Amino acid sequence: FKILVLPGDGIGPEIIKEAVKVLKALGEKKGITFNFQYGLIGGAAIDERGVPLPEETVELGNQCDAILLGAVGGPKWDNLPPEIRPELGGLLKIRKVFDLYANLRPVMFFPELKNASPLKPDIIEGVDILMVRELTGGLYFGEKKRFTTEQGEQAVIDTLIYTEKEVERVVRLGFELAQKRRGKLTLVDKANVLESSRFWREITEEIKKEYPDVELSYMYVDNCAMQLIRNPRQFDVIVTENMFGDILTDEGSVLAGSIGLLPSASLNGKFGLYEPIHGSAPDIAGQNKANPLATILSAGMMLRYSLDCPEEALLIEKAVKAVLQKGYRTGDILEPGTTLVTCEEMGDL
Amino acid sequence: FKILVLPGDGIGPEIIKEAVKVLKALGEKKGITFNFQYGLIGGAAIDERGVPLPEETVELGNQCDAILLGAVGGPKWDNLPPEIRPELGGLLKIRKVFDLYANLRPVMFFPELKNASPLKPDIIEGVDILMVRELTGGLYFGEKKRFTTEQGEQAVIDTLIYTEKEVERVVRLGFELAQKRRGKLTLVDKANVLESSRFWREITEEIKKEYPDVELSYMYVDNCAMQLIRNPRQFDVIVTENMFGDILTDEGSVLAGSIGLLPSASLNGKFGLYEPIHGSAPDIAGQNKANPLATILSAGMMLRYSLDCPEEALLIEKAVKAVLQKGYRTGDILEPGTTLVTCEEMGDL
Ligand SMILES: CC(C)[C@H](C(=O)O)[C@@H](O)C(=O)O
Ligand SMILES: CC(C)[C@H](C(=O)O)[C@@H](O)C(=O)O
Repeated sequence: FKILVLPGDGIGPEIIKEAVKVLKALGEKKGITFNFQYGLIGGAAIDERGVPLPEETVELGNQCDAILLGAVGGPKWDNLPPEIRPELGGLLKIRKVFDLYANLRPVMFFPELKNASPLKPDIIEGVDILMVRELTGGLYFGEKKRFTTEQGEQAVIDTLIYTEKEVERVVRLGFELAQKRRGKLTLVDKANVLESSRFWREITEEIKKEYPDVELSYMYVDNCAMQLIRNPRQFDVIVTENMFGDILTDEGSVLAGSIGLLPSASLNGKFGLYEPIHGSAPDIAGQNKANPLATILSAGMMLRYSLDCPEEALLIEKAVKAVLQKGYRTGDILEPGTTLVTCEEMGDL
Repeated sequence: FKILVLPGDGIGPEIIKEAVKVLKALGEKKGITFNFQYGLIGGAAIDERGVPLPEETVELGNQCDAILLGAVGGPKWDNLPPEIRPELGGLLKIRKVFDLYANLRPVMFFPELKNASPLKPDIIEGVDILMVRELTGGLYFGEKKRFTTEQGEQAVIDTLIYTEKEVERVVRLGFELAQKRRGKLTLVDKANVLESSRFWREITEEIKKEYPDVELSYMYVDNCAMQLIRNPRQFDVIVTENMFGDILTDEGSVLAGSIGLLPSASLNGKFGLYEPIHGSAPDIAGQNKANPLATILSAGMMLRYSLDCPEEALLIEKAVKAVLQKGYRTGDILEPGTTLVTCEEMGDL
């Protein structure tokens, strides 16, 4: 397999190194050859090429089976105009360029980390949610403009826009994923207010007919923000539009107290970009302290969704669980009675 | 004072009765005369007048100092077209008609209810947030339309729109409120993506100069959704646009485990509409089981924000605390060792 590796900024290079290490070890054991190509993105790309997403990175991506990304951004580039900052010019742009329309984020409960959750154990135990966020439409990419009203007042517009196909493909993926899990899909929207939400519901009602084995329900986004805290076990697969997904996936990520462990996939069919959901953590960059597990689990998702290696994906997940069970921890998840290890040691383990 | 009372649907009439009872008792004790006018809204108005917000209700409101509302909506009216349902045609319309641009929702920790929170006690103890949500702009009231793309595809648009004045008045209120509290204001937005958020920030930077004693900070909405669960004590006053506010206030409302106790105010200067944040709970309507405390505390907010009676507001708040301390509870907040009382008994207490 040809993999484009984009270390990015901050702790990006350190955590990526460990994920690559794990993939190599797995490859040797299982007879899989990974061909790693390295590229630039984010602040690292701004520093070396003057732009957050160089053309050569896109070309490399086009020749690869999947992309593995560390993290982008940092204070050094925070004063640049937004469009050429690592986040917008790098992350948002690569999503758009490769049309990565579906962002998958599992919210998993790790029994070993239950004390780390801000929620009470009886609420969080057994939580296993797969959040699917539409990633290339909505308010993120609609028209934005300033204008002057008839009364001579300054004003501003952002546009939430969706086409039928954009909705259909991500909702369909939601059904497919629900079918492979516990068969429950929740469409989260604000259909009592937004026309776009009513449009999503109409399309979903059509697609639903093709998946009679999936139990579909609808929930308003404000209610979902409550339910995620009150009773997160009720959810299996959640599908939602881009901005709601941005908010809910981040809310979901803290539930389990395991933000340093949560991977993500951004898919366009089989092609995908894989990255941890946490950021570039500039404050601990270069100190061999970062937690590489989310990136390692992202490599696991890559095996499952882009490389058709579900068994190998499982091996990675089992390895992570085993290491946690044995009590090894990086600083972010350290607890009394557990053993502190470095980023590199965690990768070795 | 002339008060327009709108009982609404479901448990609305029961909880409103107790709040009016409390106001009358307070009036007698303190020599304040309340003149209560009753009006129709929501499903009750649909049933009697055919529309969720009759003209006469608006006229009555125009003659009053404030509005006290129970709750609207219920399954009976859920199959009507959205625009004439209790929520949109009633609640959203009355906000717009009276230009109630600022929705204030306190998120309060009640020590007596700490077991009811889904969050661990060390996270939730001492939380005291005032959320200010812009209530008459943004995606809620911008243009919505279906259209066909050049490629012949069905598509949809919702518009997030704000004018300078709409932003200024609510942000200014945020500063004023922060000044009277702990002096901290957080503007929550998505300035790394939305032009409207950048517009809000520019206006906020200007207003900030007039409030040098207020410590202003900015936070992205996705991060705020996390921080509310991880470390809610960091917040004093939060101000945000309509849709983000809808999501975050609901998320905030479950933190303290006291959703049956949380009041709200929707203000236009001194004029305001006061209501509990919970819904009409059709499943327990008419059973004398509902918790009237959020409505009673809403009456308290009315005394503070519309009627210039801060001392009397405090008396109501103290009364609620005392009753909880003595162990009286309605069913929604009942715990081992506490005494179950009816809605009416709670009002008497
Ligand atoms: C950095 C930002 C533009 C991005 C987003 O809003 O999509 C981030 O919050 C995320 O969720 O990946
Ligand atoms: C009923 C609905 C339209 C309303 C809103 O979204 O504003 C409600 O959720 C609220 O927060 O008061």
